[in-house]
Amino acid sequence: MDTKVIEIHPAAGAEKKGRYLRNIWYVAALSSEVNATDLFARTLLDTSVLIYRKADGTAVAMHDRCPHRFVPLSKGTRQGDEVVCKYHALRFDCDGKCTHNPHGNGHIPEAAKVKTFPLMEKYGFLWIWMGDEPADPALLPDYSPLDHGHENGVAYTYMHMKANYELIIDNVMDLSHIDHVHGEIITTRGQLSPLIPKVKDTARTVNARWEWKQTPAMMIFANFLPDPKAEARHFFDITWSPPANIQLSVGAIQGDGNLDLKDCTGQYDLHTTTPESNGTTHYWFATRRNHIEEDGDFNKMKIKAMHDAFVDEDFPIIEAVGKEMGGEDFFDLKPVLMSNDIAPVKVRKLLQHLIEQEEG
Amino acid sequence: MDTKVIEIHPAAGAEKKGRYLRNIWYVAALSSEVNATDLFARTLLDTSVLIYRKADGTAVAMHDRCPHRFVPLSKGTRQGDEVVCKYHALRFDCDGKCTHNPHGNGHIPEAAKVKTFPLMEKYGFLWIWMGDEPADPALLPDYSPLDHGHENGVAYTYMHMKANYELIIDNVMDLSHIDHVHGEIITTRGQLSPLIPKVKDTARTVNARWEWKQTPAMMIFANFLPDPKAEARHFFDITWSPPANIQLSVGAIQGDGNLDLKDCTGQYDLHTTTPESNGTTHYWFATRRNHIEEDGDFNKMKIKAMHDAFVDEDFPIIEAVGKEMGGEDFFDLKPVLMSNDIAPVKVRKLLQHLIEQEEG
Amino acid sequence: MDTKVIEIHPAAGAEKKGRYLRNIWYVAALSSEVNATDLFARTLLDTSVLIYRKADGTAVAMHDRCPHRFVPLSKGTRQGDEVVCKYHALRFDCDGKCTHNPHGNGHIPEAAKVKTFPLMEKYGFLWIWMGDEPADPALLPDYSPLDHGHENGVAYTYMHMKANYELIIDNVMDLSHIDHVHGEIITTRGQLSPLIPKVKDTARTVNARWEWKQTPAMMIFANFLPDPKAEARHFFDITWSPPANIQLSVGAIQGDGNLDLKDCTGQYDLHTTTPESNGTTHYWFATRRNHIEEDGDFNKMKIKAMHDAFVDEDFPIIEAVGKEMGGEDFFDLKPVLMSNDIAPVKVRKLLQHLIEQEEG
Repeated sequence: MDTKVIEIHPAAGAEKKGRYLRNIWYVAALSSEVNATDLFARTLLDTSVLIYRKADGTAVAMHDRCPHRFVPLSKGTRQGDEVVCKYHALRFDCDGKCTHNPHGNGHIPEAAKVKTFPLMEKYGFLWIWMGDEPADPALLPDYSPLDHGHENGVAYTYMHMKANYELIIDNVMDLSHIDHVHGEIITTRGQLSPLIPKVKDTARTVNARWEWKQTPAMMIFANFLPDPKAEARHFFDITWSPPANIQLSVGAIQGDGNLDLKDCTGQYDLHTTTPESNGTTHYWFATRRNHIEEDGDFNKMKIKAMHDAFVDEDFPIIEAVGKEMGGEDFFDLKPVLMSNDIAPVKVRKLLQHLIEQEEG
Repeated sequence: MDTKVIEIHPAAGAEKKGRYLRNIWYVAALSSEVNATDLFARTLLDTSVLIYRKADGTAVAMHDRCPHRFVPLSKGTRQGDEVVCKYHALRFDCDGKCTHNPHGNGHIPEAAKVKTFPLMEKYGFLWIWMGDEPADPALLPDYSPLDHGHENGVAYTYMHMKANYELIIDNVMDLSHIDHVHGEIITTRGQLSPLIPKVKDTARTVNARWEWKQTPAMMIFANFLPDPKAEARHFFDITWSPPANIQLSVGAIQGDGNLDLKDCTGQYDLHTTTPESNGTTHYWFATRRNHIEEDGDFNKMKIKAMHDAFVDEDFPIIEAVGKEMGGEDFFDLKPVLMSNDIAPVKVRKLLQHLIEQEEG
Repeated sequence: MDTKVIEIHPAAGAEKKGRYLRNIWYVAALSSEVNATDLFARTLLDTSVLIYRKADGTAVAMHDRCPHRFVPLSKGTRQGDEVVCKYHALRFDCDGKCTHNPHGNGHIPEAAKVKTFPLMEKYGFLWIWMGDEPADPALLPDYSPLDHGHENGVAYTYMHMKANYELIIDNVMDLSHIDHVHGEIITTRGQLSPLIPKVKDTARTVNARWEWKQTPAMMIFANFLPDPKAEARHFFDITWSPPANIQLSVGAIQGDGNLDLKDCTGQYDLHTTTPESNGTTHYWFATRRNHIEEDGDFNKMKIKAMHDAFVDEDFPIIEAVGKEMGGEDFFDLKPVLMSNDIAPVKVRKLLQHLIEQEEG
């Protein structure tokens, strides 16, 4: 067979396999995406994954591939806490061990094992560990504020995007885009772009913070402040943690008080993504607010508005960027970087560093 | 021009060109697919092929590509037993020889030839020889039982599948899957999986045979046996011949008699496939039964049921396997093999051996 | 990351990046495609291009990619003669210079420039120069006959084709195909194919000319001749100029007179194409006739008929050829060439020579 090197036209959407940080927790699904009975299938980091809940409610994850003939196990059926392959009825327990072979004398080959992935359910998400090192619960950041408060004060949504996940990290780490991309409800009335955020980084995190005044306040807060038409002080505070989590706090206040969620009318958000492939991304957003927390209708309206803003306003831009980049490396394309890029570029470099460190 | 090595994400469905056994007969079409007048086009082994019937009914096959400017000849028209290219009206006879050039002085260049392929019409199929060695009729197995009997006792169907053809050979060579994949009409009520079939191979064939009892008999036979609700003895007997033909006999009997189609109520089937490309497959199925042979309505119902079972029950699994394998070699993926894999693995290894032998 | 060489199945439509002549004028759009206010986006030579008109009507072209984060500028908005990026509101003037950065202290990095492309508006088209050498207006051929005459005597159309642009040049440079591909309205009644056109080439052009008689005349001219049913003398005269322009004159006459557009009833056409990618092509056609020039309805009917003939009759053949060639080089596939191929082959070789010359 002769072998030939080809070039793929970037616009064709052909994708390289991604290089990912692996010994880390990624979101696999919202808790609510995996119900009590069904087999749930999703591709994460180029790998097909099966997730389901045992009778006791605990969720488990394994390679969605029978070791016999590579059928996705999600095409099969459940038998108690075990899963039966559709093709030849091999049965596997939650540890990926084959527990039943109906063929021949029923001998189960030593190698008949499905790779399982540690799964941790926390903060409304199922977090998966796909690396080869032992799963380290300490590597999951604390997003417990999502858990505390009225059930109608928190909401979650899932989105699928046709672009590399780092392009979303760029998007959220540089909030200066909101005045240009988004509409009236979260405009800062031009206050954000001129600001150079305070950026602080540690060995594993990058934090950026903006503080400003605007008149009137952001529309999402104005009506919950004493004087909806008057000036208010605001803040954004965002922290990236590997691989792709950005915790964002935002709030507004009139009169005295600190620019934090204790004193301000505001919300505590989590943006988190998991690469499906090098060119497609699972994106989740969670938000808890500290005002009208008990209003279920408002809660639904609010999460729908946020979801639609991401999908209708950010995604067309980010997907166009992905297409324009054609699979090339971001820095290889020599972007012209500015003061508003400090935080996202720090994240890109730190993530790159962590990946290289992991690959040794 | 700079050249760059890329990796294609397996799920993207990109396909390598296949390695195929070439000096052998493949099915190109059902006899009934090629009518008396039309030009029939089909891609076989990554090659576009034109098939049509001469006035005397004989079918001929040639490369579906004009040697002038590479237009598929199937886009053209017939002129008697010849074919006229749509683009510039070059005319070719059944031997691929250019017989008319309307351009300039009408000179026909020596090289103006279309590659033809030996074609043999037998057993309700058109068999094509795409190798460079002389076509050897002796290499076509004898499937003459399809020809003998009432016209309503035999039926044929064609299917197209988005997966590599060897995955179908695997499927048919390991009949243990039928209880797990298919519904009530051909269930063995769990009898088949525990059996280890008797496998016999020769230098060019692999045969497997199962014998068992079940109560009641397979639904496809039960009503034609003396006591539809009682136990019956059954057999499956399958023989693979290169490249991708599997002759399958299946039958049931109550009382004395041999487990063969002479004594049993049963059917004589042929499963045969031809790669369209490395990742897509033409699949044909023919079946002749030895009971209620004259009932045309039953015949139509039966072939439709078989066709639908393959397409609705086997194909989703096999296509999911193909996607999951992502173009990787079967053995490279380290399948966990069991007793029910003996026959299909023998076929894979023998086919691989024959291809390597041919490639020298 | 392990890297693996793959082969793409030709039918999959994967495309190599093209090699193009670059220091030359290509059509970017019809003048009428770019209106006074909108941002117009089109991919040319594998490169995304933004075109828009300044307030004074002058059209400008630049890379459709913000140098900051690679967003297509065509997703943004206009601000006077400048364009504002949708993502972070960087503003660029017509020279590609960044004139406003709303971020931080507003400093504009030296490198914040968009590559612009010389654009020339002539003969109803916007011509773009995408090479690195200075644009040379002298390299645009003279197609001024399109400009002279009644406004209802000229018409333009745009088509998009899924095949390499050289396959269209082949098509037009060998007009012998028209009797075989097209219908009654432009048939030469078999007169054209036997002719060997007179072919003349210069260092940068290839000209071919056919002269013949037919009865009746081509249907597009017959009704405008003294005796629609009688014999008429005809001519075709075509001249290719790099990269992909073919000026075609065709006419018919009864009685005395020269076979040119001064004496004949005829039309002056321009076929011109620009590669979008190696496997897709922008195709424009312009035609000016010297008869019933003032009839706007006839003009619309005529351009629609020509457009439909190309799209419905030529494109299926050419796209099938492109698919059959599977991205292989034309000459590598060893076409059997004939007398009617002299002109298109001269063009292919001359174009190849010019590209090699340019690449040094």
